[in-house]
Amino acid sequence: MNIALLGHGVVGKGVSYILGKLQDKYHLPIKKILVKDEIECIDSRMTLNINDILEDETIDIVVECMGGIEPAHQYVLEALKKGKHVVTSNKKMLATYAEELLSVASKQGVNLLYEASCGGGIPWMENIHRIKRIDQIHNLSGIFNGTTNYILWRMQEASLSLEEALEEAKKLGYAERDASDDLLGFDVRYKVALSIMEAFNVIVDMDSIPTIGIENIQKEDIAFALDRGYVCKLIGKAELNGHLSASVLPVFLKKNHFLAAIERNDNALSCESSYLGKASFVGQGAGSLPTAHAIVQNIMDILEGRKIYRTMQKKEILLENEKKQYYIRCAKKEALKEYIQEEINEMSFLSKEMKLEEIVRLNQEIEDKKRFIAEVEK
Amino acid sequence: MNIALLGHGVVGKGVSYILGKLQDKYHLPIKKILVKDEIECIDSRMTLNINDILEDETIDIVVECMGGIEPAHQYVLEALKKGKHVVTSNKKMLATYAEELLSVASKQGVNLLYEASCGGGIPWMENIHRIKRIDQIHNLSGIFNGTTNYILWRMQEASLSLEEALEEAKKLGYAERDASDDLLGFDVRYKVALSIMEAFNVIVDMDSIPTIGIENIQKEDIAFALDRGYVCKLIGKAELNGHLSASVLPVFLKKNHFLAAIERNDNALSCESSYLGKASFVGQGAGSLPTAHAIVQNIMDILEGRKIYRTMQKKEILLENEKKQYYIRCAKKEALKEYIQEEINEMSFLSKEMKLEEIVRLNQEIEDKKRFIAEVEK
Repeated sequence: MNIALLGHGVVGKGVSYILGKLQDKYHLPIKKILVKDEIECIDSRMTLNINDILEDETIDIVVECMGGIEPAHQYVLEALKKGKHVVTSNKKMLATYAEELLSVASKQGVNLLYEASCGGGIPWMENIHRIKRIDQIHNLSGIFNGTTNYILWRMQEASLSLEEALEEAKKLGYAERDASDDLLGFDVRYKVALSIMEAFNVIVDMDSIPTIGIENIQKEDIAFALDRGYVCKLIGKAELNGHLSASVLPVFLKKNHFLAAIERNDNALSCESSYLGKASFVGQGAGSLPTAHAIVQNIMDILEGRKIYRTMQKKEILLENEKKQYYIRCAKKEALKEYIQEEINEMSFLSKEMKLEEIVRLNQEIEDKKRFIAEVEK
Repeated sequence: MNIALLGHGVVGKGVSYILGKLQDKYHLPIKKILVKDEIECIDSRMTLNINDILEDETIDIVVECMGGIEPAHQYVLEALKKGKHVVTSNKKMLATYAEELLSVASKQGVNLLYEASCGGGIPWMENIHRIKRIDQIHNLSGIFNGTTNYILWRMQEASLSLEEALEEAKKLGYAERDASDDLLGFDVRYKVALSIMEAFNVIVDMDSIPTIGIENIQKEDIAFALDRGYVCKLIGKAELNGHLSASVLPVFLKKNHFLAAIERNDNALSCESSYLGKASFVGQGAGSLPTAHAIVQNIMDILEGRKIYRTMQKKEILLENEKKQYYIRCAKKEALKEYIQEEINEMSFLSKEMKLEEIVRLNQEIEDKKRFIAEVEK
């Protein structure tokens, strides 16, 4: 099978590298590589023109690792329409256009696979797919973002500020120049939406997943958590129990919680199903070779004749009803008196048990752009 | 495809249950069930005669979940020779006869699959298989035994003695009446041998894997570990780095180690490969439905046309050379003076850094049947 790469950055180069190492084992030549700039055209396979790939009938699999929504979406759509299999690592684009793209892939009888879109190298999508063959998944949860896990870990371990930890993450290549998608929890939201799709066979409106990030977390929040025996993690989760619920929130987890031990830029993703019970998958959530590994696994799946075609129904996300305690730090504490269970200091308190919808409303109403909110594990 | 079960105990009944639930989705009828006793013959599918299954040409897949080495081994061998696929959960039998059975399966062009033999419901074998398609695994390690993990967890969490924790484990169905294979580390040894086979494509002589169990662990050992910030776990591991090394040992892990957070009867298995890096899989290491889930996954693999035929070379296990510190408790401490780094009390000490071969030799030489030895994480 002949392959074309769209994008030759960190991930694309990883795919080239691994396929190069496998050339004696499998026939998977990279025939064309779409690049952005003349200067990247270092051999005859490189092109600046997507039509060189779309019109090439000898290309069987298009690997999209350019990132961004457009033109990635248009290119993937066109490739599917031309009857080519597509493998993508682009969570944002896919979470936005999954319904359309899966439907076109299904009509064309080609695969659209996206292991690398969620959990980097962790074989999350594949294991969900396998579990689902014979079992019913009820919920999923975990650490979906390596950048923020690295930041939270360093803030805790080395008493760094958010800014210092972010700087370090950038230097190590764990954070992009603009890390706002990570910090605001949007990256986790894309991945939770894709995991819902994979686990529950439904498409959701991403914007309806309540999302609180760690963009305002301060040393004192981490210090308080540690003092009380908690570790702060950014947790994405979803549950199908009659209705579908989902959320992205910072959570103060008890120190002996399994997720509290997930360090560095690792991800840890779990799902619970009827027969298997809870199954967890831990590994590198990002990075050139782990992500490329996941992409090449999908290429192998296609080579071995994998056929998953599906169309999905939309399903609404409702907020879970269970009441939980929250840690809240904000400048306008006096306006929140009715919610206070335990005072911590002039800025922060532990709340009475509240429903998620109350906390979502508070998060919008609090007139303090530096506020920080985290769920506290019972 | 038609299925026959050999054995209808805890696991066999789980397989019946799951296949029953899937009957509208897949055509996988259980046509015959081999049972041990007339009293188990509750419907027309049950038989006491293995030949009713072996001679039945309509049976495509034989699921062996009887346990024990014989007659399970003979039945599996005969089934393979008759051209039937075999799925087994029997780690002891398989670790003993893998070379013969895999070679016969390969000759006959049928599958011999054994996901459930290691890690219960955890999709360990399948993920190793997938990783290996495109990557090279260098080492594997983890908590392979749920019984001892439950015991160690309860000794630590509730200050129970080994006897009390074992009693609890038996009541909960986590330990069999005779738990010596678990306590002595032999169960982990079988699973490490099978994991080596899967990850490195070689067959090893199980008896050459140095194995120290937790059969003599006492409250005071756990108390010392906790006091120093360690958690005791029974760890199996193997590494291929030019030569092949492997071991089964109690290890005092630092409290923030990922494996220290694995509680109850869970298992946690990791492997490290060139591109993917470290990948870990956590879940229920035993139990009727999780184990049956793993068996039914293998049945699905056969239904979907899986074909893995292979023969393997034998490879010798050499002891690793790295020096490590050990915790040693024994009655004849005075004879071990030269190894003492730090005295703990009249019975126990922390050793100087020693090679594994020294500790294996000491373990045989110490004239105290109640001795306990654990590696101490650096």
